[in-house]
Amino acid sequence: MALQSFIEVKPDSHFPIQNLPYGVFKPEPGSPARPGVAIGDYVLDLSEIAKAGLFNGPILTGSDCFLQPTLNKLLAMGRPAWKEARATLQKLLSSTEAALRDNARLRQKSLVSMVIVMYGLVIVIGQAWFIGCGLLMLNLHLNFQGKVEMVLPIEIGDYTDFFSSMHHAKNCGTIFRGPQNPIPANWFHLPIAYHGRASSIVISGTDIVRPRGQGTPSGNSPPPFGPSQKLDFELEMAAIVGPGNELGKPVDVNEAADHIFGVVMMNDWSARDIQAWEYVPLGPFLGKSFGTTISPWIVTLDALEPFACDAPKQDPHPLPYLAEKISKNYDISLEVQIKPAGQQDSCVVTRSNFKNLYWTLTQQVAHHTINGCNLRPGDLLGTGTISGPEPASLGCLLELTWNGQKPLSLNGASRKFLEDGDEVTFTGCCKGTGYNVGFGTCSGKIIPSPSL
Amino acid sequence: MALQSFIEVKPDSHFPIQNLPYGVFKPEPGSPARPGVAIGDYVLDLSEIAKAGLFNGPILTGSDCFLQPTLNKLLAMGRPAWKEARATLQKLLSSTEAALRDNARLRQKSLVSMVIVMYGLVIVIGQAWFIGCGLLMLNLHLNFQGKVEMVLPIEIGDYTDFFSSMHHAKNCGTIFRGPQNPIPANWFHLPIAYHGRASSIVISGTDIVRPRGQGTPSGNSPPPFGPSQKLDFELEMAAIVGPGNELGKPVDVNEAADHIFGVVMMNDWSARDIQAWEYVPLGPFLGKSFGTTISPWIVTLDALEPFACDAPKQDPHPLPYLAEKISKNYDISLEVQIKPAGQQDSCVVTRSNFKNLYWTLTQQVAHHTINGCNLRPGDLLGTGTISGPEPASLGCLLELTWNGQKPLSLNGASRKFLEDGDEVTFTGCCKGTGYNVGFGTCSGKIIPSPSL
Repeated sequence: MALQSFIEVKPDSHFPIQNLPYGVFKPEPGSPARPGVAIGDYVLDLSEIAKAGLFNGPILTGSDCFLQPTLNKLLAMGRPAWKEARATLQKLLSSTEAALRDNARLRQKSLVSMVIVMYGLVIVIGQAWFIGCGLLMLNLHLNFQGKVEMVLPIEIGDYTDFFSSMHHAKNCGTIFRGPQNPIPANWFHLPIAYHGRASSIVISGTDIVRPRGQGTPSGNSPPPFGPSQKLDFELEMAAIVGPGNELGKPVDVNEAADHIFGVVMMNDWSARDIQAWEYVPLGPFLGKSFGTTISPWIVTLDALEPFACDAPKQDPHPLPYLAEKISKNYDISLEVQIKPAGQQDSCVVTRSNFKNLYWTLTQQVAHHTINGCNLRPGDLLGTGTISGPEPASLGCLLELTWNGQKPLSLNGASRKFLEDGDEVTFTGCCKGTGYNVGFGTCSGKIIPSPSL
Repeated sequence: MALQSFIEVKPDSHFPIQNLPYGVFKPEPGSPARPGVAIGDYVLDLSEIAKAGLFNGPILTGSDCFLQPTLNKLLAMGRPAWKEARATLQKLLSSTEAALRDNARLRQKSLVSMVIVMYGLVIVIGQAWFIGCGLLMLNLHLNFQGKVEMVLPIEIGDYTDFFSSMHHAKNCGTIFRGPQNPIPANWFHLPIAYHGRASSIVISGTDIVRPRGQGTPSGNSPPPFGPSQKLDFELEMAAIVGPGNELGKPVDVNEAADHIFGVVMMNDWSARDIQAWEYVPLGPFLGKSFGTTISPWIVTLDALEPFACDAPKQDPHPLPYLAEKISKNYDISLEVQIKPAGQQDSCVVTRSNFKNLYWTLTQQVAHHTINGCNLRPGDLLGTGTISGPEPASLGCLLELTWNGQKPLSLNGASRKFLEDGDEVTFTGCCKGTGYNVGFGTCSGKIIPSPSL
């Protein structure tokens, strides 16, 4: 039987004891940010667990890595520390362990509900989240009243975006440059990437202001200028870098997994009209840098391990520095929904999967550092848009509507690109036997360009 | 007569009282980093000046902005604070002001020599750096013995590199893409830029490890792989961002100067073989990210103001968001020298000038933020390679040797690109009447790729 927590986890929850994704949260507005893991409908406040002395393994005893407003210090400590933390937390939260389960005071301090109480306490209490702990519920009711605020879990030094789905590369190449050789010659030899903008990375739930910019002029006219007319989402995931490497010292591809703490969902919002005009010869810039949304929960590679699968066979065979002994992808189902302003329901516009990537996360790390470039704890490595081979698995509107030529219908509303008020939500989930390991949601709503 | 300091400043010094560039230094190895300004052959330790209560204007009184290991806090305070600091320091260092001049104890604590004593104290003392203060020299001799260590003066959140010299754009376009329309259609409408790598920005004097990477394959062969065979420098300068802007709120071009604290010299080292193979379609990545060197001293816009000159006339006229009331460049002479390993002397390989830029710093800021992208204090905005129109004013070896077709002679040594042991040094200086406002040097030496 699968490991179980003393905290109730509903069967469809993304956050059973097998997952324990890391985030940073404020229990109430204005309170200091601190690290937590998600368990069922709760966040476990790791600063309280640390203060209680319960991180008592050889590496984490006495460490202040959980008393920080970001996870960067934990990331820098590397996989042995991560494994120790995971083992400690799985034990602490398990149904058979008394240390937290039977300590009402510590539970009250450390377990914070993520559920907003809309209709009074009774409803939430009615869900009986402790197994056999009914007496404690009144003690905990204060936590139910606030809404946990999730914040960026890491300080991101550098953000890199790869381009690792072959389907996406082929479709974009066809749309931007025509059907002759849509995939550039270098694509099959190296995981192409570009540097992204770190300052404008925001947490799920942050509104996205429609960017202004120049588009491609017709004939001798000046370039059109104004709010983007081709605003798009991009369905991506992103790896969070752990210890990283010194400048001048590449990471071996077979050791690269030790430099990846975990994975988030990422929406690399894109203004296709701005991008198309600006990107030659130095790549995307303002078409991307107005905002990038990440999900609050970082699912660790350890939690994803049961969902590892073979990466696609690579032909041509990669150069030795990219050839790995075991080449892994992960089976993570991904879905994108759009909810237009004024509509009650969201509409699923695509279903894809992380395993559609051609280049692996570990190859990305090895390539990124082969020139000596240093990665630092908290760096973010986007996968690029994760498009699959089927029309219903394309990861952005550029592909789904073929640059606006084939509008989508969203419960009757037509969309070539995103309109003001549209809310885009990603979900990602691995389906295990009797449990999920999920990413929660990654969402953002488009708001109009302000007047200049 | 020009303002003079009580500290001797030699006529050819880059650092008279009219300059006062900011840096961050360690007076001795292992001591904490703190901000300073350069004056003649000395660094004035601003943490000591602050602790002495001498920043006594309305904005800076009581501020801890000079008690930090970087300048970011000062940058965030904006131009009124910068102007107050400059006025305070110019007064404090002037020949007619007693507060520091006549306080031996404070001078001893706050003035640190940048000169390395190679041949004993007598020589340095013989330079009589205080006017009429011979008695104090014995007190100060300890400072003479160490070498001040300059460190990165800012924590760089994001680094952006522009492409603002028309001559460079034209030459690169011709070399990489052929002589038909070498300058892309968008170039005259917007200051093209790409995101660079912040983690690998290093301070002048740091060795640069030759990067490994893939080059362009011939025919159906796999891409060649190994240490770059086309390692290059790029002569750039870079603006340091001050307060910056909130996400979603562009900076007006006519207010953009208030967001620029100052300027450094920058060597955007480039591996042309790696770059040529990787850069389509998403721009430069590993061809640049192995290292970028900046000079330690940030010359403020206030110090550069006497050297402002008209920017080139722009045709076509830029869109309204880029059209500025006053369009300024700065007359800064730039020079690049290369010293091959084993040679005694450096060889000047190019002489250019900041005023060769087509797009101004303020246009760069306005363009960067027009989509709502937020700039943060300490962000670095590179100008792109500053090539002039003459063959002897080209800003990189790619142009100077025309991609290796026309080797240079360095005192008899032939160079297509940089070889291991080559030391590249930039200098930059504005020539005033009776004084210079200079940038010192920005240098780095190439060391071999380590074995894998």
